[in-house]
Amino acid sequence: LVSLTSWYKMYPPQFEELIKELARLPGLGPRSGERIALFLLENGEAEKLAQAILKVKESIRHCPSCGNITDKELCRICSDPKRDSKILCVVEEPCQLEAIEKTGEFRGRYFVLRGKITPWEGKETRSFPLKKLMEKLKKEKIEEVILAVNEEFTALYLGKFLKPLPVKVTRLGRGLPVGARIEYADQATLLQALKNRSEV
Amino acid sequence: LVSLTSWYKMYPPQFEELIKELARLPGLGPRSGERIALFLLENGEAEKLAQAILKVKESIRHCPSCGNITDKELCRICSDPKRDSKILCVVEEPCQLEAIEKTGEFRGRYFVLRGKITPWEGKETRSFPLKKLMEKLKKEKIEEVILAVNEEFTALYLGKFLKPLPVKVTRLGRGLPVGARIEYADQATLLQALKNRSEV
Repeated sequence: LVSLTSWYKMYPPQFEELIKELARLPGLGPRSGERIALFLLENGEAEKLAQAILKVKESIRHCPSCGNITDKELCRICSDPKRDSKILCVVEEPCQLEAIEKTGEFRGRYFVLRGKITPWEGKETRSFPLKKLMEKLKKEKIEEVILAVNEEFTALYLGKFLKPLPVKVTRLGRGLPVGARIEYADQATLLQALKNRSEV
Repeated sequence: LVSLTSWYKMYPPQFEELIKELARLPGLGPRSGERIALFLLENGEAEKLAQAILKVKESIRHCPSCGNITDKELCRICSDPKRDSKILCVVEEPCQLEAIEKTGEFRGRYFVLRGKITPWEGKETRSFPLKKLMEKLKKEKIEEVILAVNEEFTALYLGKFLKPLPVKVTRLGRGLPVGARIEYADQATLLQALKNRSEV
């Protein structure tokens, strides 16, 4: 009796459309889409969300120098003369940049790849600004590139790509997270923690 | 070094605003809001979501007879003359109505409460259309009311509220879900399953 394909079928078409658009968002699906659509319908401030989306699409751009998101000509880091331009941290997404900024430790600049390097996914892979990265390294006489990327393949690919250049390439240290319990650590992490052990 | 209150602080303000609006949605929070905001920024069809929200807010209304959502004068169930008007199923939300419709078993009509009855939450509790329910019961000479609500309190409250009326009040059967394993059932469910046992 229950047809899986007719999941949205009986709502008014405009409401189905909203569920479908919500279900496409990362981490959501038809059920959470339905729940959020009902919430938006009952909620007086749903228009604020619609306006916020339109405003972001209209006014937020990518920094032409590093790819970070900004509402200015250059992003706040590229336009800050106090930042060290000799050290460049390569990240996949602006959220990784924000996470590193919050440590307060890094005073260099960034380069945002805007996605993962996954050639096996074929056509749909966004083409990466590798040429732009290369030019930036040369033009700004960058001395060190820190690879702060989640995807192992992205790190390997960039490592190979940058090897011929006269630049030091480093990766974020691997090991146990602060406060982690050794008995719960996975083997790969524990192996890295052993390799990267430091003297006390 | 890491300030929890400055979670969004460094993005452009329009982008922060979008994260905040997304984080308010049910089941989401600042982290999933950030992830979805970045997705929308990179996605060519984000405007479609904004338009879908605006269209729903503009064209979807609640059926004046039962509270179900509709884009017509009356909802598809209230306007269907073949539905049995003597039996009324009371639900909290339109999604419960849709779930019951999909069984294909119920041929009566519905009444949508649009929320939970939770008087202990004080002022913010939406006032329920109880008077409207009462009038509907009298006017349409309804013979049976099925309470198909998730919240135990809502069922108890409605049960007491409807008791003085000359109408049969029933609840959905409690017991083991179809295909459930007895050893994993919680005690309360198992107790109901024992009470509601049927002859084979």
